[in-house]
Amino acid sequence: MPEYAAPAKEIEFILFEVMNIAASSIPGYSEIDPALVAALVHEVGKISTDILLPLNAHGDTEGCRLDAGIVHTPSGFGTAFKAIRDGGWSGIDLPEIYGGQGMPYLMGTITNEIFSSGNQSLAMFQGLTHGAASAILAHGTEAQKATYLPPMVACDWTGTMNLTEPQCGTDLGLMRTKAVPQPDGSYHITGQKIFISAGDHDLAENIIHLVLARIPGGPDGIKGVSLFIVPKVMVNSDGSLGERNAVTAGKIETKMGLHGNPTCVMNYDGATGYLLGEPHKGMRAMFTMMNEARLGVGAQAIAQAEIAYQNAVYYAKDRLQGRAAYGAQNPKGPADPIIVHPDIRRALLDQKSYLEGGRALLLWGAELIDRAQRSQDEAALGLISLLTPVIKGFLTDEGYKMTVKAQQVFGGYGYIEGAGMSQFTRDARITMIYEGANGVQALDLVGRKLGQEGGRHIRAFINIATSFIDSHKGEDPQFEKTFTAPLAAALKDLQSASLFFMQHAPKDPDTVLAGSYDFMHLFGHTCMGLMWARMGLAAHKALKNDPSDAAFYKTKLTTGRYYMSRRLPATALHLRRIESGGAMVMALNETDF
Amino acid sequence: MPEYAAPAKEIEFILFEVMNIAASSIPGYSEIDPALVAALVHEVGKISTDILLPLNAHGDTEGCRLDAGIVHTPSGFGTAFKAIRDGGWSGIDLPEIYGGQGMPYLMGTITNEIFSSGNQSLAMFQGLTHGAASAILAHGTEAQKATYLPPMVACDWTGTMNLTEPQCGTDLGLMRTKAVPQPDGSYHITGQKIFISAGDHDLAENIIHLVLARIPGGPDGIKGVSLFIVPKVMVNSDGSLGERNAVTAGKIETKMGLHGNPTCVMNYDGATGYLLGEPHKGMRAMFTMMNEARLGVGAQAIAQAEIAYQNAVYYAKDRLQGRAAYGAQNPKGPADPIIVHPDIRRALLDQKSYLEGGRALLLWGAELIDRAQRSQDEAALGLISLLTPVIKGFLTDEGYKMTVKAQQVFGGYGYIEGAGMSQFTRDARITMIYEGANGVQALDLVGRKLGQEGGRHIRAFINIATSFIDSHKGEDPQFEKTFTAPLAAALKDLQSASLFFMQHAPKDPDTVLAGSYDFMHLFGHTCMGLMWARMGLAAHKALKNDPSDAAFYKTKLTTGRYYMSRRLPATALHLRRIESGGAMVMALNETDF
Repeated sequence: MPEYAAPAKEIEFILFEVMNIAASSIPGYSEIDPALVAALVHEVGKISTDILLPLNAHGDTEGCRLDAGIVHTPSGFGTAFKAIRDGGWSGIDLPEIYGGQGMPYLMGTITNEIFSSGNQSLAMFQGLTHGAASAILAHGTEAQKATYLPPMVACDWTGTMNLTEPQCGTDLGLMRTKAVPQPDGSYHITGQKIFISAGDHDLAENIIHLVLARIPGGPDGIKGVSLFIVPKVMVNSDGSLGERNAVTAGKIETKMGLHGNPTCVMNYDGATGYLLGEPHKGMRAMFTMMNEARLGVGAQAIAQAEIAYQNAVYYAKDRLQGRAAYGAQNPKGPADPIIVHPDIRRALLDQKSYLEGGRALLLWGAELIDRAQRSQDEAALGLISLLTPVIKGFLTDEGYKMTVKAQQVFGGYGYIEGAGMSQFTRDARITMIYEGANGVQALDLVGRKLGQEGGRHIRAFINIATSFIDSHKGEDPQFEKTFTAPLAAALKDLQSASLFFMQHAPKDPDTVLAGSYDFMHLFGHTCMGLMWARMGLAAHKALKNDPSDAAFYKTKLTTGRYYMSRRLPATALHLRRIESGGAMVMALNETDF
Repeated sequence: MPEYAAPAKEIEFILFEVMNIAASSIPGYSEIDPALVAALVHEVGKISTDILLPLNAHGDTEGCRLDAGIVHTPSGFGTAFKAIRDGGWSGIDLPEIYGGQGMPYLMGTITNEIFSSGNQSLAMFQGLTHGAASAILAHGTEAQKATYLPPMVACDWTGTMNLTEPQCGTDLGLMRTKAVPQPDGSYHITGQKIFISAGDHDLAENIIHLVLARIPGGPDGIKGVSLFIVPKVMVNSDGSLGERNAVTAGKIETKMGLHGNPTCVMNYDGATGYLLGEPHKGMRAMFTMMNEARLGVGAQAIAQAEIAYQNAVYYAKDRLQGRAAYGAQNPKGPADPIIVHPDIRRALLDQKSYLEGGRALLLWGAELIDRAQRSQDEAALGLISLLTPVIKGFLTDEGYKMTVKAQQVFGGYGYIEGAGMSQFTRDARITMIYEGANGVQALDLVGRKLGQEGGRHIRAFINIATSFIDSHKGEDPQFEKTFTAPLAAALKDLQSASLFFMQHAPKDPDTVLAGSYDFMHLFGHTCMGLMWARMGLAAHKALKNDPSDAAFYKTKLTTGRYYMSRRLPATALHLRRIESGGAMVMALNETDF
């Protein structure tokens, strides 16, 4: 069975030595000290390793089941979900007045990664509830907040997002679900939603569905979509549960992975719903949830790649095949462990350098969300809106590839379900699809975010990276050569691509769109380069102070140099593809495919 | 349910316009004319589409089952396998004296691709039998050939390869299975083999296992391994079936995919076996089978990517979401088909350009095998020994990625098993692992093949490509700019990488090994570049003759230019990684991972 240990030291290094959060001006950050983080990672890690992980393969095998209108989760999930609830982890970064712990979103992101490593299917029940609670928090009335938030923060009730319909996924303007106003101010919701994660289940006494629907007579298309709160069980005025609402799970999907989380077809048959936020402004309210959810999906990508990597390392140290080219390393044994082989190390370093850089990027994203929300920092809000599709799209594409690489280390055993490596890839595969497929992330990035406010956000990113490079010029030739010079090269590719898009956007949108996916990856690599440069600097600094754990910092530098010299140069290839333009991509007739 | 049409026109274009096989001096090639190929592809395609494909998802869902010592294949597989047998397709390229059709291996490869598209699990029963029959053909005594080949050629009996044991996969020197000589000249085989595809099943009345084992007293390690024929049911001297041999399937594995083909643990408990070839020369005999099997796995990679692509195209033309940036293309409908979107086209062109280039490479490999065997051409043998790990490793890595891209086109539906796209990726995943995991292919390439005979084979490849470029210099500036110039650039990267390895091999093997995987991909892309240059030339020529199907050739040119400008430049990135050397890869202690 797979093993897992929460990456405590990695997280502490990023928070305190790279991001230096102790010195941050963001309200709430000064209360986070190393002892608190260590304790949190320890507790959350214990639940993940001891309670969630042992149920992971089991959930995959047993799956969920719809029986007489009731969705049953895999046996044992109830007890495990209770452990998350009882620890108060579901509300760690939600307001204290609703029963949360009021900590920064940064802490919630760390918790999410660790729980997702142990069991993505189970962790999602909490993650989705968090997203729904955030939307109610941002857009709900005081009464709505008072009614729904306390049980949702405690995860006594869970939440869902209902966007997709059979005929509309990306293009939400095609939505058909209707919300008919009632004399008492409520609405009757009628329609079918599909792909609803945790749409129905037996882990909570109530489920609060957030549902996008049209109020008849409103504008056509996406501008006529409103968001509604639709409880599975009606809530009485005293907060007690009343009648069952007219919403049912019609089917659960058979999927490639994520078997422990029921993906439901939800049927709304005149179900009672309550408007959340303003009429016809449903997309705005939904995006509060979506942006947070997209960062959460990035955390899942790191989470699956992390546990896959840890097990690939265990296997590589244990499996004896062949001999090291530089002489037998296990001369008394029949063969050497395969970690002696350079190609196995290449595969492991690809993973390790992705994981550490990716986690730094993810936590930077969480910090920006905190800065935007807690400090009302508009620049941070702009930057995170730019980075969200990159964090989601790039980290999940790369994360999936890393789970495949980890599986590959196992050879034939990687293909056998019992080893657990297949499940990591199958579960990770969904991260490239849900919360907006990665092609849609790329479109959001180049079609909306890049040019937003005259390109202010991308310029802000470039300024941050350029300032970093400039401010460490001449300090340390070795650091410059191995870290800032490659970052500068990547940044140049990013600037060239941005300029190329700006020139082509007005008259040749197809060229921009044809290059969108490569731009997302070019940008993603450049973000990773910046993260690695920051981490490299922190490691260099630490080593100058002759720390007791020099091996940790030396490993950090080697891993960083690996990324800088072997992974980051991918930016040149992406730029080349972008510059090849859109004409060739659009040249074929539909019938020529 | 997924659809499939055998790519008849693509195959004919490669055979007759690119490879020009009608003018080939290889014995048997002159008999292959367009009408024959069209008829073959039609018949084989009909079986694949009408009989194999409808059972594909069914086989995935029902799987195989071991019950009281007997392995049951999914219901319907027996009838479908009979269709392959009755058509005589199992022996298409095996000798007529044993009941085959005596056609070139090239024709067998085409058949294999088409059957594998419809149902990889089912097609493998025949593919493995072919491999085992080839080994008996090459190394068996006349009596062995007379006994085993006729029923194997007809697939009345099937075959297996038994190499792997729990403690030994790549490192076959660790093998423990024993073969004790008996007074009658036979051997008693005792040991356990794992990961044996089609190790037991109910599709044939007998199974001929080819088993690697040690004769006690022989040399240690890989040099003391011999190959044995071990029938499931003993064969009487008159060819009739006798007693059951002491070989049984102990377990079937639960796998990520390929559920329709039972992967067995095989227990040999003093089973009677017969030496095939010379004692202690088992690896040589096994390699006859392995090289063919590796090309066969390349064909499977193309096969899965092909059917995945075809269905991605159908979906992209059918699914309505959003509007084209260049104006509504389906103004009367609620939205445009997603094939209007540049990023969807990018994903489809990645697949299309891989498929057409990859198929050309695969068929070139098959031609080289025919040339080596039918014309006893040593140069062809050398070249195919060099290209085999590239065809296996590169085509399967890329093929898998393409099935993932095809799945991605489906958005959320791609993750749902009912759509069929998940199965294509899950089945394709094994191609990167079996018949030597791709890391082992890379090791074989740089560790054995590259330096073989003083580097003669790689020089031969470079000469072929250089001659092609030189011989078309000045003919057509457009062709040079879009096809031969990018090929020349890739070739330069390949030469630089080869030179770099030659310089480092003696004193720094880790640098060579750390770059092996990137070299395999660098080489693979360069092969694709050569294939696309050849195809581009053929299309240019055809267009000059004003053909009736000009659209086909124009599409070919666009697709080729796409590969040349957007995919082929990956060689520069691979070279850069190679040149970053092995020191960084080897720098970490085992405990630092």
